[in-house]
Order: sequence, then C-alpha cells, then structure tokens
Amino acid sequence: MRKFHIVLVMLACIQNASAKNPLPSWNDGQAKQSIITFVDRVTAEDSESFVPVDERIAVFDNDGTLWCEFPLPNQAAFALDEIKRMLPENPEWKDEPAVAGLISGDVASLKADHNAGLIKLLALTHAGITPDTFDSRVENWLQTAKHPRFDCSYRKVIYQPMLELLEYLRTNQFETWIVSGGGQDFMRVFAEETYGIPPQQIIGSYGKLKYELIDGKPMLTKTLDSLFVDDKEGKPVAIAQFIGRRPIACFGNSDGDQAMMEYTTIDNPRPSFGLIVHHTDADREYAYDSNPSSSGKLTTALEAAPQRGWTVVDMKQDWKTVFPDQADEGLSSLIGQWLVEDIAVSDSGNQGVVDRAQTTVQFSADGTASGNTCVNRYSGNFNVDGNKLTFGQLATTRMAGPAALMDQEQRFLKAIETVATYEFGEPGIVHFLDKEANRVMKLSKK
Amino acid sequence: MRKFHIVLVMLACIQNASAKNPLPSWNDGQAKQSIITFVDRVTAEDSESFVPVDERIAVFDNDGTLWCEFPLPNQAAFALDEIKRMLPENPEWKDEPAVAGLISGDVASLKADHNAGLIKLLALTHAGITPDTFDSRVENWLQTAKHPRFDCSYRKVIYQPMLELLEYLRTNQFETWIVSGGGQDFMRVFAEETYGIPPQQIIGSYGKLKYELIDGKPMLTKTLDSLFVDDKEGKPVAIAQFIGRRPIACFGNSDGDQAMMEYTTIDNPRPSFGLIVHHTDADREYAYDSNPSSSGKLTTALEAAPQRGWTVVDMKQDWKTVFPDQADEGLSSLIGQWLVEDIAVSDSGNQGVVDRAQTTVQFSADGTASGNTCVNRYSGNFNVDGNKLTFGQLATTRMAGPAALMDQEQRFLKAIETVATYEFGEPGIVHFLDKEANRVMKLSKK
Repeated sequence: MRKFHIVLVMLACIQNASAKNPLPSWNDGQAKQSIITFVDRVTAEDSESFVPVDERIAVFDNDGTLWCEFPLPNQAAFALDEIKRMLPENPEWKDEPAVAGLISGDVASLKADHNAGLIKLLALTHAGITPDTFDSRVENWLQTAKHPRFDCSYRKVIYQPMLELLEYLRTNQFETWIVSGGGQDFMRVFAEETYGIPPQQIIGSYGKLKYELIDGKPMLTKTLDSLFVDDKEGKPVAIAQFIGRRPIACFGNSDGDQAMMEYTTIDNPRPSFGLIVHHTDADREYAYDSNPSSSGKLTTALEAAPQRGWTVVDMKQDWKTVFPDQADEGLSSLIGQWLVEDIAVSDSGNQGVVDRAQTTVQFSADGTASGNTCVNRYSGNFNVDGNKLTFGQLATTRMAGPAALMDQEQRFLKAIETVATYEFGEPGIVHFLDKEANRVMKLSKK
Repeated sequence: MRKFHIVLVMLACIQNASAKNPLPSWNDGQAKQSIITFVDRVTAEDSESFVPVDERIAVFDNDGTLWCEFPLPNQAAFALDEIKRMLPENPEWKDEPAVAGLISGDVASLKADHNAGLIKLLALTHAGITPDTFDSRVENWLQTAKHPRFDCSYRKVIYQPMLELLEYLRTNQFETWIVSGGGQDFMRVFAEETYGIPPQQIIGSYGKLKYELIDGKPMLTKTLDSLFVDDKEGKPVAIAQFIGRRPIACFGNSDGDQAMMEYTTIDNPRPSFGLIVHHTDADREYAYDSNPSSSGKLTTALEAAPQRGWTVVDMKQDWKTVFPDQADEGLSSLIGQWLVEDIAVSDSGNQGVVDRAQTTVQFSADGTASGNTCVNRYSGNFNVDGNKLTFGQLATTRMAGPAALMDQEQRFLKAIETVATYEFGEPGIVHFLDKEANRVMKLSKK
C-alpha cells in the first residue's frame, strides 16, 4: 500500500463580494459601465458567458493607453536624451544626419522616411550593450528625466484610471499583459513596479539577442537584428507567439492596436471586450486622433468601433482624473508593497525587527491593506484622508511560529491599531505615527 | 474623506511542512538529495540563500528531459505520420527527395545535410495552415499514434520522476517553463494537460505567423519564415526574450541545453541549480550520450558538469520508475482535476448537482486531494491501493452559500466519507463506490 503525506494544506476563504466602486477615477457612464458589465458576465459562475480563469487574458497597449505618448513617445525621449548624454564621448556621431538633426533641434525630420532617423538613434542607444547595461541606463533616465510639459518623472505620466482597471481585472483573476510597439526591454525596467505586470507578461518590439561565453561568463548583447516590430498585424502575431491563447479583452488607443482588437473580438468563441482610449482632453493631457504630432494615429479603429461593439473612452468625459498626481497624492504614493523596518511599540522590551522576518504591508487602490505579520497573513481595510491614515479591523490567519516572530507579530498588530497619521521620510521610506505624533513604525518601499 | 471597501479578503493558511517524500519515483541518492537541498535552501525564509517567489524560474528542456526522444524525436514521428496520411491527396509530394526517402524507409537520409530532409517534411506538415488546424492534427495524432517500442500513446512516454519534480517545484512556488528545440505550437497542444505547464510558459522553435482579416474574420497562418531554432545559444536568447528573468534552475539532457545551463548557473547573483538527465537505461528506456541514433547528443555538457556543479542523473540508478505506467497505473490515471457530475448520496431528497456549481476534486501525486465543495475550498489526503480509494479527514473553509449549494456541499462531503473503491467508466469518467459497491459519485476529467 502506498503512503502519502500532505505537502501543503491551503485554506483560502475568498469573500466574493463585488467592490461597490472598483474604478474610482472613472466617471459614471457608458464606458465605465461596459467594463463592469463585461467583467461581471465572464466571472459569474452561474452565467452562460462564464470564462474559466485560465482563459481570462487581457492585453494592453502601452503608449497612449497606459501612459502618455506626447509630445514624443517616452522611449524616443529616452533615446534623444541618451544621444545627448553620450555625444561627448562619441564625437563622430555628429556626422550622422539623424544626430545632426537632433542637435539642431529638428526633431520632426527624425520621423521622415518611416522614422529612419529615429531608428538610427535607436541603434546607437539600444544595441551593442548588455541587457543589464541597458536596464541601468533606463533606470537612471527614469530617475532623472522630466516630462517637458508635466515637469515630473516619466513614471508619473501614467493614467490613474488605467491603473485601477489593471487592478480591477487582476482582482477578477485576469492575467494582464502588455502588447506594445515600444521596446520590450525598455518597458520591463519599470512595468512591474508601475503597472504590476511582471517581465514575462510584457511583449514589445525586440531585436535578436546574441549569446556568448566571454572569459567563461555568459554574456548577452542587444542587437537590432531580426527586428520584430510589435505593431499593427505584428500584435496578434506576437500574442499567438508569446501567449498562445486568444485574449478576451483588449485595450488600445490607436490604429496600431486595431489588428489585436479584431483578433480579440471578432469570431472569438468566448465573450470578448475591446476598448479604445480616445485622447480628447487638451487641458489635462492631449487631444489627438487623425493627425497626431507624435504617435497614436486613430482613424480606422475609431470608425470600426461602433460596428465592432468596442467601447470608446472619451478621456475628457469619462476620466475623473488622468494622472495619479491628480488623484490623492498621498494615497497614490502609499499604494504598493512596503517592508516594515522598525516597530517602536513594545510590551516585551524588544525593539526593531528580526532580520529577514518579512513583515509587510500592501496598500491596494481598492482600499485593502494586506500582507504578512511575519508569521500570518492578514487583510483589512484602510482610510487615507490628507495625512491621516487609519486601519480597520484586520483579519489574520492563526498559525504559530517561533517566539521571536510571534513577539514581532504582536508588536506589529498593536502598532497598527495606534496609527493615526503618516509622513514620508527619505526616498522610499514612510513613517506611521500615533495620535501623539510618535513614530510607531518605519517602512521601506519593496 | 475617501471611503474604501474591501474587494477581497483572502485568508491563507499554509502548512509549511516539507513532504517526507516529495519525489517518490526517485531512488534515494545524491541526485535526489541535491534537488531537495537546493529547494530547501532557496525557500527557507531564514536562509541567506532565500530567493523571492517572483524569481523562482525553472526551465526544462522537453525532448529527452521530460519525454522520450527515441527512436526519433516524437515531433519528427508526427511529421512522418502526417506525410503518410496526406500523401494520397498530394501525389506530387512523391517527387520530393525527402518524401521519397521516407516512403522507401530510408529515414536516416532525412537527417543528412543538417536535417534538410526533415526540415522539408516540417514545411509540408507545419506550415500553410492555421494554428487551430495544426492543433487539431496534433491532437488527432496523439490520440491514435503509438510509440513503436512501448506500444502506447506518445502522451505516455513521459518521465514519471520529472512529473514529480515539476510538481515539487511548483509546490515550492517555482514557475515552471519549457525551453525546447521542439515546435512551440506542437508542445502547447499537450503540455498543459501532460505537464501542468500552460501555453504562455512554453518556449520552443517557431516560424513567424502571418495575420490577415479574411472575409472579415481574423486569420493566422503558420509559416517557416524567420524560423527561430530554440536550441543551443538560442535557448538563453529565448529565455531573455520571453521570460526576461534569469532562471535559477535548469534541467536538460544534451549539449543543446548546455548554453542555458551555463546561463542559469554561471555568475548568477542568485543560488542556482543545473541538472542533466543521462540516459543510461537501455532496458527500461534507452542508453545514449556521445553518439545517439536520434537527437540528444551529450558530450561537452557531461564533461562540464563536475566543474559547474551540475547534478547528473543516472537514469538506471536514480529513477525507481521511468514511465507513469510503471508507477501505480490507477493512481496515475486519477492524478489531475475532476468535476463532480453526480452525487447519489442524499439526506434532502436532492439528487444530481446544480448546473455550473463546480464541485471539484484535484488528486495530486503527493497524495493530496483538494478542490471546491462548490462553496468552500477543502484539502486532505487520500490513499490508493489497487482499486481501493479512501480519503482522510478533509479540512474545509467555512463560508456560507445559497441553500442549494450548501446542500450539495453536504452531500459531497458525506459521499466522500463513504468512498471505498473506484472504477473508470467511459473515457474521461470515473465512479467512486462505497463498500457495498454502490456508485456514490460520478466525476469527469477536467
């Protein structure tokens, strides 16, 4: 007789209540309602149109759909800034017409002849280096460069309503993917932290990598060989290649997204959903469609929308806020995963936290705080109002752990109850304070 | 003041005990121990070598690593069978030297000139059709073709010890990927059901797809254009392209896997693990390395193994069983996800099950049975001995649901307690019987 042992017992209670307002930055209206209706349809187990979790694939364009693409696509801005940064060490680049055009401020000429100038600049800035080198250059640029109009990091010119939409879909067990004409490696640097989308769910344009062992060490080098442009008909091709499943939801903003919208919504045996972000808001962002000065031309996809049943978002009408900074500034800075670095409250005389015992707080846009006490999982809600921060009753699992960790758990749960306000410290640090303004907890952004 | 609502409260209790024997088809020895030691090292939260869940990427070759590649790679056998099947409708193919060689039984000549003949046969069988057509041809072949030596479906010439290894890694929150020289589309047809690996985690060789709207409907066509061969240096390239993270564990069996083994294990900032399956068992499978009559040449990777610290599996010594059929036949047929179709036990007079109320049973190779009662999650252990089947005490969550579902839950839990034996019915159906041999439950394979 065979004997078996339990490896893992997982008891999961999922309170399957719908959020009363899952998309707070969306104005009530047809666009918002169409999203919620679709998600309800495919997730209700008693519905004819129920779609199993494995098949809940949602694909998003990036430029103009998740973040701003004006006055230039942000990756082009990166390439231009990189050229300027590296020019002193590469004076011969000045003989290159594309570089000369850039230096003389003639950015428009870079787009002539099917972006030949831009592609040349890409070759100078996106090839001949390792992916690690490229990643750190992008990271440095993101930390220093500012958007010319909004005067903030490019990481912040992302659309708050779309962040909420990504989160809403994931809460409903969709797998969210980016399928963008932008560079795959470029997006992977920031997309996990910014959008909650891991590298393996990001499809973009790419050149073939070269692999070698150099001095006995593995080395990859970026090239522009066999360049795959993930745009127009390339998008459904890439979806089939990378995902191998047909999406049931597709979000874009330009004619470059039309093929993947069609692939998602026409003749799909599953219920499907398509949505186009129409940039109609010159005051808060930009207004463009048929004749944009940057990327994002939108004509045929907009014409096709009524016939195809695609939702068209009128940015001006449908979005309460555009960028996270227009939403609650403090709240948007809190959203994400934090690691508890110090707890001041103590019954036991213990201070600090145990090395590598991960006590965490995850703030979600839907008002949920959850994480690990370091022994147990917990979850509850929280309120932010200006600099005020309070937590509701937390539900926790009831596992036992080593004494030092149980002590830390108790101190954490006790400290959380006393939190009344918060303040940001040095970059990446937040402090929680009690009502006498004593710092009771210090956390670092994960 | 902003108001928030809890969308989802998840309480998860994870009993973090190690299985006493997570790899039952592996003999005790250095190979098995090295796997367990590595997994323990990277998953222990108090360990210096702890690796966060997001970075637990494990990559597996397929041919010769997860399934048999003799006497021909199985996909080549598929191509040959397809040629024979379609030849009557395509008599002109006879003028093709590769087809003529095949008909005359001169399979060896197909491999001459860098497999030129095989590639020609691939073009005839793997291109010019839609992915859906291709998938259904592969599915049909898998249902009918038999392995020439083992006289069973090609789905069954998979390695039981590697199935257990995949499951063991996933239990420890690894994401398991296939990175194979085989065709990506070919593997995606069976890999999810066979290995538990979804399409989006399968990387293989591929030709570019063509996308068109035909008669207003989206149409993809397979081509051999821009053929990407996912072998040798192509493997680390594909890993970077598709996953965008460096794996920490790599499993292969030939020199074609050496580059990805090196990429995984040399100079990796994380702890890493490499393993080579050495085919040493002519009795139970095949014995080959430096001079194989099929694919799978293993020379330089085997030489490099000691220096690199790679584990070498001696199939004959290290594997208790090779194929699932040598393991417990009944058990291996039960493993997987089942949907309860009918419950005969009733206190309430109710029979049957509520439409779309999913009561499920997942049998895992580690002896755990888990699933949904239709309202709550449950988990416990089970025993199989011949046709005997019994369940241990089940732990369940304690949510309330609609009356009809609560009734179904009660009937399910009551019926499970009475189960004493099982028997397979029509294809894809199993019945559970009580000790008087009454059928108390009917389930269908999901």
